[in-house]
Amino acid sequence: MRYTILLLALILTSCNNAAPTDQTLDILTIKRVMAKQQEAWSSHDLEGFMQGYWASDSLKFYGQSGLTKGWQQTLENYKKSYPTAQDTGLLNFDLIDISPIAPGAYWVMGRYHLKRSVGDAKGSFMVIFKKIEGHWKIVADMSAGDS
Amino acid sequence: MRYTILLLALILTSCNNAAPTDQTLDILTIKRVMAKQQEAWSSHDLEGFMQGYWASDSLKFYGQSGLTKGWQQTLENYKKSYPTAQDTGLLNFDLIDISPIAPGAYWVMGRYHLKRSVGDAKGSFMVIFKKIEGHWKIVADMSAGDS
Repeated sequence: MRYTILLLALILTSCNNAAPTDQTLDILTIKRVMAKQQEAWSSHDLEGFMQGYWASDSLKFYGQSGLTKGWQQTLENYKKSYPTAQDTGLLNFDLIDISPIAPGAYWVMGRYHLKRSVGDAKGSFMVIFKKIEGHWKIVADMSAGDS
Repeated sequence: MRYTILLLALILTSCNNAAPTDQTLDILTIKRVMAKQQEAWSSHDLEGFMQGYWASDSLKFYGQSGLTKGWQQTLENYKKSYPTAQDTGLLNFDLIDISPIAPGAYWVMGRYHLKRSVGDAKGSFMVIFKKIEGHWKIVADMSAGDS
């Protein structure tokens, strides 16, 4: 009887911990995606940077010049605005808040900083991550440069 | 036999239409929440405006001055920044994109415009709506004034 209660307590404790552990893993994976984006951007590898985004025509990027639809168009815009390694510079993300929206979906609020010889740039963003076919991808991005 | 096929076709058609109809209803309801926010704000009713937001300490508002946590603190900030009807002025939302994230969750990207005697103000936003206890509420807001 005593062992049954102990076993039951152990099972309940492990069930209770299941959700937070999953969330911790999700957040770690999302942070890793963004760390890879930092690296790729800072090597002027815009295609590599774009691996963090959902490769779909339904991707939405909402920036200074309005709404851009689709992965390919977002990449083209980046290529146009950041043609050389001097333009991309070194990217650093400062992640301020990562919160779950629903199972398989999070938002990330943060700051971006570009260290560049042509002049630094910085601003704020909120992105929405979804787990798509086992991979965490940004499906929506709002970015705003500091005024 | 012919009637059975017809009945089956009707059932399949109605099943097929179920999801888009739900989404259309969700989007209409979200638009109505934001229309009510416009009205409340434009009457300098900040508590009324805040009815569109999740009444929780977990609400996140990411604006010019960084991250604000909680419904009450967000309201206090609005009261401080917009003390009189001249400060609030007339609010108009321009909704650019409303997309589903997961069942019971959407993002809305848009523009806000404040018409005021003390000087107009405008900017962009992305908010996340969740259906909580049957009501659509904003759980996260990123707003950025035009630079």
